[in-house]
Formats: sequence, structure tokens, C-alpha cells
Amino acid sequence: MEKKILVQKFGGTSVGDVEKIKNVARRVIAAKKKGYKVVVVVSAMGDHTDDLIELAKKITDNPPEREMDMLLSTGEQVSISLLAMAINKMGHKAISFTGQQVGLVTDSVHCKAKIKSIGTDRILEHLNKNEIVIVAGFQGINQEAEITTLGRGGSDITAVALASVLKAKVCEIFTDVDGVYTSDPRIIPTARKLKVVSYDDMLELASLGAKVLHPRSVEFAKKYNVDIHVRSTFVLDEGTIITGEVKEMEDVVISGVVLNKEEAKIKIVSVPDKLGIAAKIFKKLADSNVNVDMIVQNVSDNGRTDISFTVFKEDLKKALEVSKALVKSIGAKEVICSEDIAMVSVVGVGMRRHAGVAAKMFEALANKNINIQMISTSEIRISCVVNEKDGLAAAKAIHTKFGLDKKK
Amino acid sequence: MEKKILVQKFGGTSVGDVEKIKNVARRVIAAKKKGYKVVVVVSAMGDHTDDLIELAKKITDNPPEREMDMLLSTGEQVSISLLAMAINKMGHKAISFTGQQVGLVTDSVHCKAKIKSIGTDRILEHLNKNEIVIVAGFQGINQEAEITTLGRGGSDITAVALASVLKAKVCEIFTDVDGVYTSDPRIIPTARKLKVVSYDDMLELASLGAKVLHPRSVEFAKKYNVDIHVRSTFVLDEGTIITGEVKEMEDVVISGVVLNKEEAKIKIVSVPDKLGIAAKIFKKLADSNVNVDMIVQNVSDNGRTDISFTVFKEDLKKALEVSKALVKSIGAKEVICSEDIAMVSVVGVGMRRHAGVAAKMFEALANKNINIQMISTSEIRISCVVNEKDGLAAAKAIHTKFGLDKKK
Repeated sequence: MEKKILVQKFGGTSVGDVEKIKNVARRVIAAKKKGYKVVVVVSAMGDHTDDLIELAKKITDNPPEREMDMLLSTGEQVSISLLAMAINKMGHKAISFTGQQVGLVTDSVHCKAKIKSIGTDRILEHLNKNEIVIVAGFQGINQEAEITTLGRGGSDITAVALASVLKAKVCEIFTDVDGVYTSDPRIIPTARKLKVVSYDDMLELASLGAKVLHPRSVEFAKKYNVDIHVRSTFVLDEGTIITGEVKEMEDVVISGVVLNKEEAKIKIVSVPDKLGIAAKIFKKLADSNVNVDMIVQNVSDNGRTDISFTVFKEDLKKALEVSKALVKSIGAKEVICSEDIAMVSVVGVGMRRHAGVAAKMFEALANKNINIQMISTSEIRISCVVNEKDGLAAAKAIHTKFGLDKKK
Repeated sequence: MEKKILVQKFGGTSVGDVEKIKNVARRVIAAKKKGYKVVVVVSAMGDHTDDLIELAKKITDNPPEREMDMLLSTGEQVSISLLAMAINKMGHKAISFTGQQVGLVTDSVHCKAKIKSIGTDRILEHLNKNEIVIVAGFQGINQEAEITTLGRGGSDITAVALASVLKAKVCEIFTDVDGVYTSDPRIIPTARKLKVVSYDDMLELASLGAKVLHPRSVEFAKKYNVDIHVRSTFVLDEGTIITGEVKEMEDVVISGVVLNKEEAKIKIVSVPDKLGIAAKIFKKLADSNVNVDMIVQNVSDNGRTDISFTVFKEDLKKALEVSKALVKSIGAKEVICSEDIAMVSVVGVGMRRHAGVAAKMFEALANKNINIQMISTSEIRISCVVNEKDGLAAAKAIHTKFGLDKKK
């Protein structure tokens, strides 16, 4: 039987030093021994990329992005060659390739390029010679053979893209956590590791702050229908499979609970309920590069309404300036704000088919006497803003209510 | 008038840190302002290449050479991008290219590849847009687009090769010394900087230990008739031009005096004067990777002769083992050796046209009561082995005798 192709991706912490590179070599060889043709994607070692950025900053605040890509792409070139050496030292043939060498062609947007195509000939040629193929993550070339990089989450995207064009069985993404959890286990100790989670849930969890995978790579995997297996570099246990919606997911109402204390709330009080007012407010905020997360506007009362929204705490000062400057011109009364908030969210594609999820969530909070300040919902997510001091209790109560706690 | 092309090469110490890179940027811009189209070749920063080699050694004693090239070529890629940033920051347009990007094609001998061809289109396109072009030294690709490196002196060779294909006016090689001297100024303080020296003299001086330029790059310059200007990165003075023989060189009998204390002497006593004996001895030494420098064999006396030769001190032990093992099989008497020797050499293409150079040298030594142990001559070089304790006095006496001392 034809051997199946497996793509394995190891991030910077997984190849942080020589000993860790040797560990990765052993894991790769183990996969080969299981009968896979293995393609490995690696990031730059540990803080190497940050060190290079520091070096550039000492020269200029505003380096040409083309030259930044020339600089940063060296990081992966170092780690792929060292990994190839380590695997060869252990008696297995391995060969490393830059993005250029495997024909990973991108557009020309330096520092955040998008992949246009990947050549497979050279990779397949070496896989068929029973060699392990190592590809530099994060980097490519444009059509003029200029070196480009893919930006944040770039190595994950390289791995997913390779898995797609090579029709790999799965794309294993090795990282320093051992999977996707129903909540952050450092905050909610009863959180359970998920065996499987849908792309959409993963996207919501990622955008809400679960830092396992960058949303771009999940979107990419969803678009090309690549199964991702997120697992730990340092333990052998299975991690979490991220995949399209499958039948059994329908029974799982909620995949996870996310607690976010990084936002602040702003309320513009008594805004005249006139056409275009909301547009005016959020256009001004966007122009000032303030990222607005949740927006709530109630039905108006006597032609006036309150508009509330949340922003990241580091943007609060700027958001307040913009809002206060607007108060007069839009005829509102005042602006009040609060940093003492927490946002608790439940995420799950299953809620599309299950009624009463919101009610169940609100009930969990009411049972703990936790007051809800704001509510916002999407098709697969419900978020509530509560007092910061109630945040943890809220998240725990909801986690328990939806039966996510791990079995004792 | 069409602007002339100037190639400038900066070694690792010249780009050792961010401040030094800025200094290089200023020198490059100064050359552009003088009206040249400037192509810059740079090495990796300071000890960067050694650091990378150390990293590889932690993984394996015997890395695949292909992967070493993948690893080491990142060093120059870092320095070219940083230099491009520094020049851009100073308000001049600069663009960096890897060996691959300028089409520097080599053979496939990884870690010591030889250049086969260099593309000029891309370089000329950017020079004609009034940009400074920065090329990574030391690296190229073979015909399968595998990354190769050129080995010791590789960046100098890149610079000379570029100067050749671009028909540059001159190839300036910037280093931490300010030129080629009649002798090592740290040893002979009266040594003078040479304004001009022939390729052949430079080759002899380099092979005798003058570390200004690697002999390979001088050979390359000679072959393609490229003028090299060796000068200091840190001072503005003119350095030394290395060029083909010109008329005025005929008056200069001697270019330099070199003192070398790094060799030891071995004498195989009373060797039967039979056909093939010398071949046998030096074949055995070569097979043991012992580099033999000077060889002296006198006319035989009663069918027996002594064969003397010098080797680097670090090879002495091995050379002695080989020699002693041979004594019986070739029917010689014994092997004696001495580490207390110094070799003094005079070099100069001028001696081809001037008689009496050897006599003048021997006279200088005789006047100082210095005994000569061995003599060896080539067309443009005369070397004498003396007692180690006499080495410095010998070099000084010869330096003065040939009128090389600088004017007071």
C-alpha cells in the first residue's frame, strides 16, 4: 500500500535549543517508523525572530519591509538545517528546503504575504527516496523571486498549505500545550481537553483569546478542508483534532468557555436616535485605530438611547478621547467608562441546533447572583459582560452548567 | 559620461555590530557621492559564522555539507539586509540580494564551491535606477538551486568575481589593516605600506603568512585581471593596489620580507640516493595529511644524502612518526628534528630582472653573524631557515639591506 503523507509542524519553543531540536528529530523519526512519509515544517528557534527584529530596530524604526523579510527568513533557514543535521546524525536521511526551494509562491505583500501556490515535485521526489523533507515555515518568494514572509501564524499556515497540496492525512501542529481545552486550565482547573473541535468553534475560541492556534491558520485549514491535530511536543498523548463539522459534534452544545479580562467598557449616554449616529461614532474610532469588540445598543426610549461598546484596555485612553470629542457634535449627554469588567463567552457550533443555550447561561449566572451588564450573541457564541470580580466565578459556573468539567 | 562601477567588499570585522554597519553605510554612500555606481559585497557579522558552526557542532561532528551551506549562508543574509536598512535610513536607496538572487552559480562542491557564472542583469537594472546594490558574499547556488558556499576567502572571491563580470574600475577590499606592508609592522616597525604590489608577489606574501587576503582571491583577481584595492574600513587613507605587473615595478626588486616561526625542520639522515626514494617519503607524508613546505636535498656524497624539509609545528608529531617508520624501509640512518627554527623570505617579481638578490640577502645575514641552515628559492622568492633566536634580527637586517625601511 502507498504510504500516507504526514505533515508535522514544530513551533519556535519546540526547537528552542539544540536539545529540543534533537527531541523533535526523535519525534519525526518515530512518525516515519510508523509508516508515514513525513514532511516537517519548522519555525525559527525560540526568540531568534525577536532578536533579529531587535537588531533591525537598532538601525531604523522603519526598515523597508522587503529587507525585513530578507532578514527574518534566515531564522527558519537556521532551524531547518540544524534539524536536518540532527535527523541525519540519528541515522535517517533528511533534507531541508527554504520556501524558495519548494516553490512556495506568494503575493508581493512583504511581511504579511499570502500563499498563491506551492510546488510539490521536489518534496515528492525526496519523500519517494524515503527521505524526511524539512521545509522552512513562514517564508516564500513572490513571482520576482523576492523573499517574502507570511506574518503572524505563518509557519502554521505553511504547514496547513503543504498538507493541502500534498493531500496529507493530517497536519500535526506541535506546540507547548497539549491540545485545545474547554477553557484555560490555568484558570479553570476542571477544564477538559477536547478530542475534536470544529473549525468554526476553534476560530471563535482563538479570536476570544485561546492562543493555541492563530485564527489565520484555522481559516486556511477550513478553506482547504485540512484536518489539524494540535498536540504537545513534549508529551506523547494525542491532542485535539480540528476538523469540519461531523455528526457527533451535534450532540456537543458547547465546546468551550472563555474568560477575557483584557477589555474595558465605554457607554455614551443619551445619544439621539438619529440615522447614521452609530456609523459616525464607530467610523471615528476606526480612524483612530481603536479596535472595538462588542457593541450593544438598546431600543431607544423617548428618541434617545445609550450606546455601549468594549475595547482592549490599552486602547481605552484613545477611545475615551474620541468618544468625548464626539459627545457634543452628536448631541449626547456624557461618556462613562469602566475597566472593572470581565467578558465570559460560550462557544459551540452545536448551539445552532439546540435551543435554550442563552437561557441556560443566564441561569448559571443568576444562581451565583452575578449581574449581567451587557450581552452579545453570534450564531455560535454568546458573550456576557460582568463585573471583573465576578468573572472567574461566572466562567466556572457556566463551565459546570454545560457539563464541561472533567470526570473525577 | 557613463558612471563607472565600483565594487566594495567589507569583511566580518567591518560589519561586526550595528555601529560598524552604519559606518560601512557611510563609506558606501560616500563612494556613490563621488560618482560611482556602487556594488557592495559583505561577509557575515563578526563571529556570526563561527557561532553557527558551534551550533552545528553541538548536534553532530559530521554534518552533511549541504546542510552546513544551508546554515552558514544565513550569516551573510543577515548582514546584507541590515546594511540595506542602514543605507535606506540615511536617505539613499539600497537593495540586498542573496547569491541565489543574483544568479551566482557554482559547481556542486558544498562548503568549497567554485564560481561558474554570475548574472549581471538584476544588478545592472538596480544600478541604473541609481540604487546601491548589496550582494551576499561567500554564497551561491548550484545548477539544481541548492545553496553552496565558497569556503575560506569566499567573500573576497565573490567581490573579485563581481568586479570582473561587471567590468568594474576596481574592487576595493576593506579590512582591519590599511594595506599590504613590506613586512609585518607589528614585528618590524620600520615596515612600509606598499602603494602597489603585483598579483604574484601578493600570492607569495599571502602563502608565507601575510593574512591581508586569501591567496584564492588573489589568484582569481590575477586570472580575470581585476585590480584590488586593499584598504582600511576605519581610516580614509588609500591602501595598496594589487594589480598585474606594470613597468615601474621593475625597479622594485623586493616587495616584502616575511618572517615565519610556525614551522619545524625534519632531517632524514643518510638516505640511499636511489630512484624514487624522495617520492616515497613525500607520498607517505601527503597520505597522512602532513603539509610539507620547503624541501632541500643536497648532492649526494658516496651514494647517500640527507633530505630535509619543513612542516607546520602542529603537524610535526605526525610527520616524525611517518618519517621514523620509513627510516628502516628506505635504509636511512636516522631522523632528527628541530622546532627552534625561523624562516625568512624575500619576495619580489623584480628579482627576475635583477641579479644578485640572493647574494645580497646572504650578505645581510653574514654581516649579523647569522648562520643559514637551509636555502630554497623560487622564481620570485628566496627563503632561508635560520635559528629561531636569530629570526627577528635576520628579517630586520634583510628589510634594511633591500632599502624597504620607511623614510624617517
